[in-house]
Amino acid sequence: MPQEPKIIKVEELPATEAKWIEFQKISWQDQTGRDRVWEAAARKTRGKAGVDAVAITTIIRHPSRPPSTIIILQYRPPVNAVCVELPAGLVDEKESPSEASVRELHEETGYKGKLAFISPTIVSDPGLSTANMQLAMVEINLKEGDKEPEQVLDDGEFIERVVVPIDELYDRLVRYDQEGKTIDARLWHWAAGWHAAKTML
Amino acid sequence: MPQEPKIIKVEELPATEAKWIEFQKISWQDQTGRDRVWEAAARKTRGKAGVDAVAITTIIRHPSRPPSTIIILQYRPPVNAVCVELPAGLVDEKESPSEASVRELHEETGYKGKLAFISPTIVSDPGLSTANMQLAMVEINLKEGDKEPEQVLDDGEFIERVVVPIDELYDRLVRYDQEGKTIDARLWHWAAGWHAAKTML
Repeated sequence: MPQEPKIIKVEELPATEAKWIEFQKISWQDQTGRDRVWEAAARKTRGKAGVDAVAITTIIRHPSRPPSTIIILQYRPPVNAVCVELPAGLVDEKESPSEASVRELHEETGYKGKLAFISPTIVSDPGLSTANMQLAMVEINLKEGDKEPEQVLDDGEFIERVVVPIDELYDRLVRYDQEGKTIDARLWHWAAGWHAAKTML
Repeated sequence: MPQEPKIIKVEELPATEAKWIEFQKISWQDQTGRDRVWEAAARKTRGKAGVDAVAITTIIRHPSRPPSTIIILQYRPPVNAVCVELPAGLVDEKESPSEASVRELHEETGYKGKLAFISPTIVSDPGLSTANMQLAMVEINLKEGDKEPEQVLDDGEFIERVVVPIDELYDRLVRYDQEGKTIDARLWHWAAGWHAAKTML
């Protein structure tokens, strides 16, 4: 990576210029019949599947290593930080979320896996935006001596992939935060749920 | 609840009219030195703490009941659905996220608890928005015969509280989805992490 990415300026975005997001004024009637207004952001890219994005939890099984998962690190301009996230991506116009999850995992991490499960449609931040997603679980079974595969990144994508034993994930996220990286809320929640199940019993 | 909330219309929101969110055009330089633009949404309400919101995972311990947690159901206009979420709320201008977590839990659920832990600042949807949050863990120790406390809701807030044994949380979310409710991604991830820890071993 030849240089650290950096923000040059932040300006107000005119709605007429916005290509990726739109701004909604939602007029609604509440439970008492009162007219109210809510402000929201929406993606303009939602395709046929009706789902904006997928994220992927992986389990890598290997004959001589502990069950592991894959997280990625990438710079995110909205929060001006290197974020630690689950592999994820937008669902293309004509693909299904299941197809997108296997494709995105392959592109961002190099690994090809078998989709074991995909969640229902869940909402990312329903007080602020219309954004929704599905969470996939993809299984990867490795043999002794299998090489780490090559990522298939688009031009202009800079994504670091990290394979972590699942039992070490929570502590790893705590350490990334201490090093100045920023953790995605959904990844943190998954790891916190796992950690709670392991430590509360 | 006298009537179902409903959306009357969705219009484009002019930036000049937006009170709660703003729209940012972020000019940045990527890892190769190339000038790029990112579009983002931001909350206008971030206070002194630098954190937009808190969410709260609770553990309710009781002499004769299994360890339980609290989830809430409320209608969310941006996704036009009743959402199943963790108790959560915005951090007020002058309070700390820790203070906000105990206050919000009390308001939305009636329960007063002891803050056991609060996460670092994590980001809710860093490809789309600047929104950030912290995830608190609050412990509530009940005695036999303790009554369920009263919620302390604001006028115009309609929030249903549900106490669920933690081991039943994941299946409960699956059922809520099947009934037509929509699950918040962060709550789903927490429950999926817990479920994975319990079923993968």
